[in-house]
Amino acid sequence: MNRIFTLAVILGSFAFAKAQKSAAAMDSTVLRSIYNQNLTSSKSYQWLDHLSNNIGGRLSGSPQAQLAVEYTLEELKKVADTAYLQPVMVPKWTRGIPEVAYFKDAEGNNTKVNVCALGGSIATPANGIWAEVIEVDGLEDLKSLGRSKIEGKFVFYNRPMESTKIQTFESYGGCVDQRYSGAQAAAEYGAVGTIVRSMNLRMDDFPHTGAMSYGDLPMDQYIPSTAISTNDAEKLHQALQEDKNLKFYLFQDSENHGDVQSYNVIAEIKGSQFPDEVIVVGGHLDSWDLGDGSHDDGAGVVQSMQVLQTMKATNYRPKRTIRVVLFMNEENGLRGANAYAAAVATQDQKHILALESDAGGFTPRGFGFDTSPLQMQQILSWKGLFKPYLIHYFEMGGSGADVGPLKDTGAVLAGLRPDSQRYFDYHHASNDTFDAVNKRELELGAATMTSLIYLFDNYGLSKKLKK
Amino acid sequence: MNRIFTLAVILGSFAFAKAQKSAAAMDSTVLRSIYNQNLTSSKSYQWLDHLSNNIGGRLSGSPQAQLAVEYTLEELKKVADTAYLQPVMVPKWTRGIPEVAYFKDAEGNNTKVNVCALGGSIATPANGIWAEVIEVDGLEDLKSLGRSKIEGKFVFYNRPMESTKIQTFESYGGCVDQRYSGAQAAAEYGAVGTIVRSMNLRMDDFPHTGAMSYGDLPMDQYIPSTAISTNDAEKLHQALQEDKNLKFYLFQDSENHGDVQSYNVIAEIKGSQFPDEVIVVGGHLDSWDLGDGSHDDGAGVVQSMQVLQTMKATNYRPKRTIRVVLFMNEENGLRGANAYAAAVATQDQKHILALESDAGGFTPRGFGFDTSPLQMQQILSWKGLFKPYLIHYFEMGGSGADVGPLKDTGAVLAGLRPDSQRYFDYHHASNDTFDAVNKRELELGAATMTSLIYLFDNYGLSKKLKK
Repeated sequence: MNRIFTLAVILGSFAFAKAQKSAAAMDSTVLRSIYNQNLTSSKSYQWLDHLSNNIGGRLSGSPQAQLAVEYTLEELKKVADTAYLQPVMVPKWTRGIPEVAYFKDAEGNNTKVNVCALGGSIATPANGIWAEVIEVDGLEDLKSLGRSKIEGKFVFYNRPMESTKIQTFESYGGCVDQRYSGAQAAAEYGAVGTIVRSMNLRMDDFPHTGAMSYGDLPMDQYIPSTAISTNDAEKLHQALQEDKNLKFYLFQDSENHGDVQSYNVIAEIKGSQFPDEVIVVGGHLDSWDLGDGSHDDGAGVVQSMQVLQTMKATNYRPKRTIRVVLFMNEENGLRGANAYAAAVATQDQKHILALESDAGGFTPRGFGFDTSPLQMQQILSWKGLFKPYLIHYFEMGGSGADVGPLKDTGAVLAGLRPDSQRYFDYHHASNDTFDAVNKRELELGAATMTSLIYLFDNYGLSKKLKK
Repeated sequence: MNRIFTLAVILGSFAFAKAQKSAAAMDSTVLRSIYNQNLTSSKSYQWLDHLSNNIGGRLSGSPQAQLAVEYTLEELKKVADTAYLQPVMVPKWTRGIPEVAYFKDAEGNNTKVNVCALGGSIATPANGIWAEVIEVDGLEDLKSLGRSKIEGKFVFYNRPMESTKIQTFESYGGCVDQRYSGAQAAAEYGAVGTIVRSMNLRMDDFPHTGAMSYGDLPMDQYIPSTAISTNDAEKLHQALQEDKNLKFYLFQDSENHGDVQSYNVIAEIKGSQFPDEVIVVGGHLDSWDLGDGSHDDGAGVVQSMQVLQTMKATNYRPKRTIRVVLFMNEENGLRGANAYAAAVATQDQKHILALESDAGGFTPRGFGFDTSPLQMQQILSWKGLFKPYLIHYFEMGGSGADVGPLKDTGAVLAGLRPDSQRYFDYHHASNDTFDAVNKRELELGAATMTSLIYLFDNYGLSKKLKK
């Protein structure tokens, strides 16, 4: 290497380093302004208050879901260039008259337990069902028990969430087959119903609902499926130790009504330089019916809306199109996400990032990504910008259900990862209410999402792997 | 470099790398067992239940503080080699009859506001005080206002905590002089009392108490000092915009009673190899009187006790002496911490680590340290071991008040850093109660503390800086 060439390299490096530094400094300033705006003058908490307290639980096909569509459309019109509805047919299921359940021991004492019908479950007969109970530790126990031990009984799925997992969604993943597929599996062995331990790491009295499916079971073999609170699951377990022939009573009035009309709510600010490159950010507008869906997923809805409000309030004009999609029917069908992805497939737009918030309005820790090593390298180069905000988690995996159908667009799929310790205390239960959301935690989540979107808007997708 | 030497270096490196790897693998296994034990069979939550619900608020010198001394001593005897009391005299202050406060506008309408006497404040006269109010944005405003605008009035310190700080303890630090020194400063300008906006980032109705001091003010110049809830601070601020001559009424019955006998509670497992090298872990046993002190600092107390219970339950025999110190009187005197440090100074023991938990029972994020670059280098070499537990914060600064007096021992001072977003929602207020603590978050904190202690126990202080 001759001397002149060496000098050129050195000078070049300096210039490059300087340019890099000033870009990083500018990014750092933008992130600070995003967090400041969220923590001082955002609308997310106020929007959530309305969704939770003035509208309430927003199960697909319910009047509340429709009110939520209308409310968020109007609010988004105030902060977006355009806002509109995307029609989608959704399944309608209703809980009906409140459930009743108890068990009777050998001495004839009745113990009332807290249950709730699982979403999609059929009702019991009008007088309920009395039957014995066979307790299992998961779906895999059914085969060894066989029809002789199961027929005519309730199958009681009592495998708890594993408390030793640090990321509670992993514990959920290890149990949720009992809720989703338990009725189908038990019906095949002649069970009369299923009782599923709530997907909850805490011992309390709240039963947690959630989606179940009969799969390809013939309709005349459907059996009612109900969730029982963790405290009552333990109580029932104990009682069965003392009297394995105890009788359990279940009444529920739930009903499937077929499909009805609903909508995704979509709003966007058009990109100033690359309007055909789209960044999607969203949460799901539907929720379960028991609480008011503040964490699941009111938080994700208002955080997504907040991205646009922050851009407007800070006079940030994005280079690329920033689109909020409030997906309908994540909980029991994913129809909104599928409808959005199907529409995108017919359009001449390039999705570069699809970011979802659907893990509660808790203190954000980072993001899970589904993307290539090339894009991940760029994302990791931004990690230092997030350090002042204690955002440290940038890992592959677990972006989210509603952005999943966008995988084929080539977009980076991402999911906000808030602290997950308390999430399953509230998930799908009647205590998922506004008071369980902390304003600052919610706002920090929105700021973190907006920061990632700003970086993708500013730099676009990475073009080549750096050595 | 000749070929044989090169080979030796390579082989040496491999051997060294292998040894390193197996030590890291062993540490990793130990940490996993610590977290597993905490998340499945620890006693911390049960202990906290007793401290909070069966004993309650434990202000220094109160009967509850004494009950807490006796309870924790008995419980520690079950998990330690030895447990004993260290006598310490503490100030006794009582709140007396509940406070009353309201203001009257020009039309004669009374508005009741939520206040609580600050710890150490004197009472008002038995009939209370009626006076006008002068609102300020902090201590520094007094001088420019001068005696003419202050004399005969309440000084209303209304500078809020800054919401844009990510670490809420920094916001606290920017406001707490109003509470601690506000009365002394205002009295010097002839004020009749002070009303201090609660140190709370949330808008709600809870007044937050906390220590105040008259400094070197002559006793006959003491004035009553009270905290007002954030909602009512805003209400009073608004009312003052409309009528700057409104009258404020305050009654409080608080009283200083001089010093009384109390105790630190101390328990230890003796080191098997280096018994004279001591690792201290602690929290403070006293709390304010309004809530039950679950976060501040029941959490730190039971997490510290849990360190010994985990060692016992996992049959871990420490090389060094592990000592739990439950400090008395952190809130309004720090007498316990000073007494412990004074006793240590006379002993022939080497303190290598003093770890405190006094920032709430929330999801742990890491630790703040006060130590040398040499020790910090070793600590940072352990960071990867904590990654599976999402523990990422290892920074200099902010170890804690109770371990502070141990600085001269040469020990590494450390403070657990839990997520701080919700801490000031509860801090020193009547809603700092058991239900505000999540069991898993509490347990993860104890596991994180025990992990750091294990590493210091296993490796001791670092001897020399690595290049």
